[in-house]
Amino acid sequence: MKTDHLSIQAAIRARLDDLTKPKGSLGKLEDYAEKLSLIQGTVPPRVRRKAVFVLAGDHGVVAQGVSLYPKEVTAQMVHNIMAGGAGISVLSKSCGFDVYAVDAGVDADFPDWPQTGLDGSPGFFSMKAVRGSKDFTVEPALDEDAFTRCLDNGAALANFAIREGYDIVALGDMGIGNTTSAAALLAGYGSDPDLIVDRGTGIDDEALVRKKRLILDALARRGPYDSPQSVAQAFAGPEIATAAGIILGLRGSGVAVMLDGFPITAAAVIAWKMDPNVTSFLFAGHQSRVKGHKPILDALGLEPVVSLDMRLGEGTGAVIGGFIVELGARIASEMATFSAMAVSTALADEKDY
Amino acid sequence: MKTDHLSIQAAIRARLDDLTKPKGSLGKLEDYAEKLSLIQGTVPPRVRRKAVFVLAGDHGVVAQGVSLYPKEVTAQMVHNIMAGGAGISVLSKSCGFDVYAVDAGVDADFPDWPQTGLDGSPGFFSMKAVRGSKDFTVEPALDEDAFTRCLDNGAALANFAIREGYDIVALGDMGIGNTTSAAALLAGYGSDPDLIVDRGTGIDDEALVRKKRLILDALARRGPYDSPQSVAQAFAGPEIATAAGIILGLRGSGVAVMLDGFPITAAAVIAWKMDPNVTSFLFAGHQSRVKGHKPILDALGLEPVVSLDMRLGEGTGAVIGGFIVELGARIASEMATFSAMAVSTALADEKDY
Repeated sequence: MKTDHLSIQAAIRARLDDLTKPKGSLGKLEDYAEKLSLIQGTVPPRVRRKAVFVLAGDHGVVAQGVSLYPKEVTAQMVHNIMAGGAGISVLSKSCGFDVYAVDAGVDADFPDWPQTGLDGSPGFFSMKAVRGSKDFTVEPALDEDAFTRCLDNGAALANFAIREGYDIVALGDMGIGNTTSAAALLAGYGSDPDLIVDRGTGIDDEALVRKKRLILDALARRGPYDSPQSVAQAFAGPEIATAAGIILGLRGSGVAVMLDGFPITAAAVIAWKMDPNVTSFLFAGHQSRVKGHKPILDALGLEPVVSLDMRLGEGTGAVIGGFIVELGARIASEMATFSAMAVSTALADEKDY
Repeated sequence: MKTDHLSIQAAIRARLDDLTKPKGSLGKLEDYAEKLSLIQGTVPPRVRRKAVFVLAGDHGVVAQGVSLYPKEVTAQMVHNIMAGGAGISVLSKSCGFDVYAVDAGVDADFPDWPQTGLDGSPGFFSMKAVRGSKDFTVEPALDEDAFTRCLDNGAALANFAIREGYDIVALGDMGIGNTTSAAALLAGYGSDPDLIVDRGTGIDDEALVRKKRLILDALARRGPYDSPQSVAQAFAGPEIATAAGIILGLRGSGVAVMLDGFPITAAAVIAWKMDPNVTSFLFAGHQSRVKGHKPILDALGLEPVVSLDMRLGEGTGAVIGGFIVELGARIASEMATFSAMAVSTALADEKDY
């Protein structure tokens, strides 16, 4: 396997250096091509289809007033996605991603939407592991059964993506209260709360102090944290746990994963704590405006593709980043090569004009 | 006009705040939508067609050994673009840009390629103002007639773009020696040479010192610089002057311009010195790896859309940035609005969940 890795790396670097351009002059696009090749075991890499899963879930902790907005918004936004009017709907169409909304644990009932959308309309997965998580200030957010159901649902979604031939899977979130859940989760894994607890949707100083104390109190109350799972059960909402399940389910499949903002990156941390090798097929689609996002990406060793001051979630940053990562695959497979054409031999020798 | 500007700004902000998302949560995409609206005088803005002009020209200063590569590469790369194998060919296809190669002043003859490419193949403009610029260490790069021809050619390309209904025009460059030309030009306009003279294609310390001295010597010899035009004539290559002509020609047209790397940004500086208002319709597509690029973008007050460590030119950064700017137009026109749908009234009032 190690030899394989090295020979693929050598082959994709040779391919990139043979393209009709100065060596390295396409910068990060070349890095993305290389990582995709290593993920797929293919030179040049290919991107046939791309999907975004928008995972929706509710959070018991909203009962503590951590968000300015009612949890009903989670379900309303699922309707908006299914109607094609959400931010992720518009950006996915432009960036070439198929959209799947996933009810990972919303506290509301939905119509019987089809799993595979027709003619570019979104698909829907009904995978309600719970009707919202429990309030983690009072009890663990997910009991063991619920957490396992989320991971299983994620694995099923991963298998669906593999079966459908998606080469890039973007993950997005929709869940009122989920930045609080994600911050508590990351604190549970050892992050400094001062670095990761943010105003979220615009709460004031007093509310921020309250939110931080609430997380610290819960942190003290919920332990012991004797495994990555125990931290996840203590704080993760169903959409976050399901996203972790997708990542774990895509191990070894050759499918690349585009992360979105803070909650999805927290989901990646769950998967990473359970298996540190997952970062080999993860890309950070963007850096969001949420304060805690950058330190967590740094911990994962992932550099964001774009930084557009976005904080919408839904996978909006993941699909933009995914589009650009795909450009890396395109240049590697579609540009002319020195070896195949009659550009000056001097150039072919130097490849660094 | 001032009132118009303010009322359009108010209308696009109101539109963006009415989209079904927390206020401001699409960050820079919203800024791009706003700038496009102001450029077009339209709310929401529209992007129907996008074009990239890849301007090619040769530079007499290559006789001084400032580049590791022979000037023949300029013409070879034009052939590569016309054959669809260049970096810009691949990225334009993915990002939805029509490609036009422009012989703005290459010291080589080309076939009689058609101006409008068929079925996605590139178009070609034969606008050879000169057969390469003169060596600016010996004499002005462009005499007055040549410089005027370049500006006129640029104006003709601008009119073509307007007539064809392009809403975004990306500019790219191809010209061995043109980072030297661009650095001298910017020094002529007052930039500190230490900030803008770079190794370009990988020259060593000794060559870098030589390149800088050569520029300083020429700078002392070429004056007096009594007008923006005199600086441009002293140092600009034909592709740089023609790019400046395109920008000047697009004033007031409602067409947005995406800048690429160092040489095209230098062209923008020529246009800006002739008319400081041009920045109102310019976007910086990307920040290139060339050292002098960032300070010049700062001087123009432009923030790059992406930063992918690229230094290829050809418009490769401009089309990626242009794709993302277009996303701003898409969200503004295609997302559902609170006022048109039945999302919770509380939300419609607050618009900041």
